Amino acid sequence: MHTVDGIRLSATSAGIKASGRRDLVLIEICEKATTAAVFTRNAFCAAPVTVSRQHLAQRPPRYLLINSGNANAGTGEQGIRDAHACCEAMALTTGCAVENVLPFSTGVIGEPLPVDIINKGLHNAIDRLGPEGWSDAAYGIMTTDTVPKGVSRQITVHDEVITITGIAKGSGMICPDMATMLAYIATDAKIEQSVLQHFLENAVAASFNSITVDGDTSTNDACVLIATGKTYLPHLNEGGEAFIKLQDAITDVCIELAQAIVRDGEGATKFITIEVLQGTSVEEARQVAYTIAHSPLVKTAFFASDPNWGRVLAAVGRAGVTDLDVGRISIYLDETCIVWEGQRSRDYQEQQGVKVMKRDEITIRVMLGRGTSNTRIWTCDFSYDYVKINAEYRT
Amino acid sequence: MHTVDGIRLSATSAGIKASGRRDLVLIEICEKATTAAVFTRNAFCAAPVTVSRQHLAQRPPRYLLINSGNANAGTGEQGIRDAHACCEAMALTTGCAVENVLPFSTGVIGEPLPVDIINKGLHNAIDRLGPEGWSDAAYGIMTTDTVPKGVSRQITVHDEVITITGIAKGSGMICPDMATMLAYIATDAKIEQSVLQHFLENAVAASFNSITVDGDTSTNDACVLIATGKTYLPHLNEGGEAFIKLQDAITDVCIELAQAIVRDGEGATKFITIEVLQGTSVEEARQVAYTIAHSPLVKTAFFASDPNWGRVLAAVGRAGVTDLDVGRISIYLDETCIVWEGQRSRDYQEQQGVKVMKRDEITIRVMLGRGTSNTRIWTCDFSYDYVKINAEYRT
Repeated sequence: MHTVDGIRLSATSAGIKASGRRDLVLIEICEKATTAAVFTRNAFCAAPVTVSRQHLAQRPPRYLLINSGNANAGTGEQGIRDAHACCEAMALTTGCAVENVLPFSTGVIGEPLPVDIINKGLHNAIDRLGPEGWSDAAYGIMTTDTVPKGVSRQITVHDEVITITGIAKGSGMICPDMATMLAYIATDAKIEQSVLQHFLENAVAASFNSITVDGDTSTNDACVLIATGKTYLPHLNEGGEAFIKLQDAITDVCIELAQAIVRDGEGATKFITIEVLQGTSVEEARQVAYTIAHSPLVKTAFFASDPNWGRVLAAVGRAGVTDLDVGRISIYLDETCIVWEGQRSRDYQEQQGVKVMKRDEITIRVMLGRGTSNTRIWTCDFSYDYVKINAEYRT
Repeated sequence: MHTVDGIRLSATSAGIKASGRRDLVLIEICEKATTAAVFTRNAFCAAPVTVSRQHLAQRPPRYLLINSGNANAGTGEQGIRDAHACCEAMALTTGCAVENVLPFSTGVIGEPLPVDIINKGLHNAIDRLGPEGWSDAAYGIMTTDTVPKGVSRQITVHDEVITITGIAKGSGMICPDMATMLAYIATDAKIEQSVLQHFLENAVAASFNSITVDGDTSTNDACVLIATGKTYLPHLNEGGEAFIKLQDAITDVCIELAQAIVRDGEGATKFITIEVLQGTSVEEARQVAYTIAHSPLVKTAFFASDPNWGRVLAAVGRAGVTDLDVGRISIYLDETCIVWEGQRSRDYQEQQGVKVMKRDEITIRVMLGRGTSNTRIWTCDFSYDYVKINAEYRT
């Protein structure tokens, strides 16, 4: 991954995870950078989410302090105090203000945060900060993830080479609502805060907010986008070429990170794209897409490579679309039309469906025949390993 | 099970199921009986649902013709013609009107109904009709069910012994919406049609519409309540003692049948009652209850007997309740308080939770601290066998 001028990172083992794996990630942001962030909308948001929101409103962040292995969620007032204590320790050690530190946590819900362990690990984390730390950081934020997730892009804007590099974690409890699990993206471009927030919200809508593994929205979701400003760009005019180029590149990085989360979905064996076309509104199309994506019957059929289109059809039917005319609906598996006007396509042969379903990556395309609004989301199948991973998570 | 005067049943093997198991059930209803029914609200409702609705609006049913092994869903106009053809064959053989026959189907979606096989089996089905056929019929309507489901009650109303007997099937694709999988309940009491429909709708709301296995609403759900009128009762005054006694007994039979479906949920190892109390409305309480019941993370934790209350809490938090104050929420597992005012209860020890979670039947009680509306639903856990059953369903 390309380094980002103005960002240093480290990933160390503080001792939060019993396994001894890296569990403390520190991201240092240069002065004068701008930072945008979005957080979970789960009403039970974790203590670090509350504290990060407060700090972000007061000062520009200089440090993102991320621990894995403990979510500091469902921990009430004590959780808030614990998140605060870690920020205070960082402020004492580095000389920055408490509000310059944003805390993030991911892991088991409901256990007290091991504040002493984290604070003891801070010196080591600070010592190891370096611009090359992106890959290590991608490892350090993992929980049930099986692979680290990082994406890096370079584009040329106004004759300047701009770098965008990001990392994310997430594998289960994935159905982000206005945010994701944890993702950290940085660019060296100079972008003012309001534009950066705009870029992030658009990117998140098309990426992290368009994936689901299990329909469970996490308590700890957070996505942060940093612009270090080390590469000067003239003022970005909304809708101008540079503006669009930067927005697209940031969105691309987010989509690739979001897709990496789905590919690493707990127990996933297949990567599934769901396109719902011809809805009367995007909301309606998304409602249908998510109903398909969350159906355990659809997900287990994909695991079995069984072209059981009846389950897709039943999911569309229960998605709550008003006055749905079944006779206008068509469904494709990749290039194969399986349902035409509400029933099995006349030309469809079971072996065609079986052939498509054996692929690792499959697109379901549902055409509602109602309007011109479309959506696309990504999900994965439901396997024995999903049950195994989640049945054994705390053992 | 008690026989119901005025009802005869048979269950035979017509050859729809490749296994050779019983797949054709016939229920004969005496003249002058009243019948109430509710059907699926899935927009992709199956052909027999459409035909049954039409016939029911025209004449009182004399025959319920039920096949298992083929759902006749997603079969378009041909499916309607096929369901019709079976009713016509019944009418020809018995001399009743076509509209006196209600067709029902359950099984694989999207395959053409084997009309010839069914019609060839009708003579045998008619020959074998008898009042003792309830148990056989409970077997005959099974698909992935592992046990037949039948419930029988006798109550005394106005000094008359009244019998209520019912059967149901269902194990997967269970999240009934205003109906159930298939259920047939009969009583010998004389009850006028409008009162009977009222009894059925109340009973279904408290039973079949309060269960979920996998959140997938079937295309074929139907529930039929028959009153043969063989035992005379004076006019039932709404709210009178006899009215309430009958309503309660019918509701009890439906609840026991609905619970039997959950107990036989695909791969289920645990029977879970979810009570959500202190909501501002029943809708809000149900929204929370179903979000918990459908969470794969909650369901796999129950399978593992893991008191992972953080997953319950996260599900409550994402249930979409407006202005949810997390600090007022308490959660119990049976008699054990695990969450108090939004965080782990001070007195709670992990081993208490482990002890409760080892039970076969567990109640989760969530107190929202917002109002006085309550709800109760039933569900089951999510096991390896759920994946196995649904991955191998069509092989």
